[in-house]
Amino acid sequence: MAGVEETARMIAPEVVRTPVLRSPRLNDILGLSLWFKAETLQVAGAFKYRGACSFLMRLSAEQRNRGVVAFSSGNHAQAVAAAANRFGVSAKIVMPSDAPAIKLEGTRAWGADVITYNRMTESREAIAGEIARQEGRTLIPPFDHPWTILGQATAGLEFYQQLAAQQVLLDVLLIPCSGGGLTAGVSTVFRAHSPQTQLWAVEPHGYDDTAQSLATGRRVSIQPPSQPTLCDSLALTEPGHLTLAMNQHLLNGVQTASDASVLTAMRLIGQHLKLLVEPGGAIGLAAVLEHPARFTAGQQVGMVLSGANVDPHVWARAHS
Amino acid sequence: MAGVEETARMIAPEVVRTPVLRSPRLNDILGLSLWFKAETLQVAGAFKYRGACSFLMRLSAEQRNRGVVAFSSGNHAQAVAAAANRFGVSAKIVMPSDAPAIKLEGTRAWGADVITYNRMTESREAIAGEIARQEGRTLIPPFDHPWTILGQATAGLEFYQQLAAQQVLLDVLLIPCSGGGLTAGVSTVFRAHSPQTQLWAVEPHGYDDTAQSLATGRRVSIQPPSQPTLCDSLALTEPGHLTLAMNQHLLNGVQTASDASVLTAMRLIGQHLKLLVEPGGAIGLAAVLEHPARFTAGQQVGMVLSGANVDPHVWARAHS
Repeated sequence: MAGVEETARMIAPEVVRTPVLRSPRLNDILGLSLWFKAETLQVAGAFKYRGACSFLMRLSAEQRNRGVVAFSSGNHAQAVAAAANRFGVSAKIVMPSDAPAIKLEGTRAWGADVITYNRMTESREAIAGEIARQEGRTLIPPFDHPWTILGQATAGLEFYQQLAAQQVLLDVLLIPCSGGGLTAGVSTVFRAHSPQTQLWAVEPHGYDDTAQSLATGRRVSIQPPSQPTLCDSLALTEPGHLTLAMNQHLLNGVQTASDASVLTAMRLIGQHLKLLVEPGGAIGLAAVLEHPARFTAGQQVGMVLSGANVDPHVWARAHS
Repeated sequence: MAGVEETARMIAPEVVRTPVLRSPRLNDILGLSLWFKAETLQVAGAFKYRGACSFLMRLSAEQRNRGVVAFSSGNHAQAVAAAANRFGVSAKIVMPSDAPAIKLEGTRAWGADVITYNRMTESREAIAGEIARQEGRTLIPPFDHPWTILGQATAGLEFYQQLAAQQVLLDVLLIPCSGGGLTAGVSTVFRAHSPQTQLWAVEPHGYDDTAQSLATGRRVSIQPPSQPTLCDSLALTEPGHLTLAMNQHLLNGVQTASDASVLTAMRLIGQHLKLLVEPGGAIGLAAVLEHPARFTAGQQVGMVLSGANVDPHVWARAHS
């Protein structure tokens, strides 16, 4: 995928070049050499701001004047709201009425107009599509678009460059996976620059639509379990079209992790890295904890901590 | 104080060049342009690791062979233990038997030999001095030594350089103050490179020994209040000799903040910067919240988030 370097240059003035952090003690405990890309420190608390900037900055002046619309229950909503605020663009965000209050408030706080809908009886795609048509707004897709994927890929480019500056080549890279935009973008960069790195997406138990799609060779829509995952940002039940097509060629495999492992991972990240992290953002480390036999002692293992928009009560659960 | 640049070069391979973070939303809420130096992400979770490395790296091979000793109830203990571990030096740390379990465990986890004492009946200085004499160990002072202060000053040098790279000159810099080592070191750098910046130390209400010492022109030992401060890392009751002499010449003043403001500051830092921070580490923002009239709208205000070794229960208190 061409254009990652150009996208990185374009959005550089807007995004945080997030640090790569590590913990000697956590390395000792797990017997691995771990590298954490802290996208938790990105604007609006998640990598999603990269994709939102990549998309908004490519719009024409006329498109910006007409405003944008997006649907999301969480990090994409806040990212589009924050980027629209930054560029003086009107934003309408379609969110489920039962979305976490912290995410509804967070989106409104960036000045976006939040439209709530009933998840049981209404379609967010239909509502957002109708707003786009009626008001001439541009729909900002959460993952299944080249401009979005290019933005997320810049997190991978930075990560690769930051590691290369320390002469580190990863043996394994773990990427949280929902619609697959971060996975596709970051994997594109590492496949090109660091071909020996094993690229693994990580999904929550029961939400392994990308794993099933890779296994069957077609886009699988899964039936979600009755028990919702703690990883609200990874709760989609089917991959994107473009992202799946990319990930089929790029990934070495998919790991899954349970809520229990995710809670332990959140606690370890707080204790040793001093970062807040949301459940979905901690799933890479959760996979390490849950599948130790899949790693060899001393391996260089990187992971993207993808977001930090965690409710204080959920954070507290990780420490109880 | 000469030698900050040399110290920075010496310890650079060992320490984290911690990021400077900001939050557009927090800036909007407070009407200021805030810059946060995240020493919370330093090795062992606090700026103290800089001073410990600065000191240990200057010891002779023979001194290193004989080992080191330190007394501390918290961040200095963990920093010396971590640095000693890094350089293969034996460390004994004298800690009160009622120190927070998380800090006792943290110090032991770095491989240090922890000697506990009864705060009511024994003197930690006497115990550590006796160990130093009997075993030929070098005592690593927590703040009142040029090597320690030079190490802490490197946080200021980095902060200054990171701001200068963005063409930012601070109007005000807020520095958490206990023994005064961080304050003296960071102030030295900013006084030299950025003379127009107002340099303010920040102490907890009731623990304003540096404020009283500056006001009276002599080293004041205060009677601590019956209610202990939440800021365990800032609970000393008298400044150092060297640090006070330096701070008398360097500081523009001292602010104080209450536990209530500190808890609010911790919550805001978690919410908007996604960082864990301990009470003492958040006191700069607490001073902004408590004394808004001392700041002018739009001012460039920097602060050092000095540490993140916070008990999960204390963190939860900030969100209740």
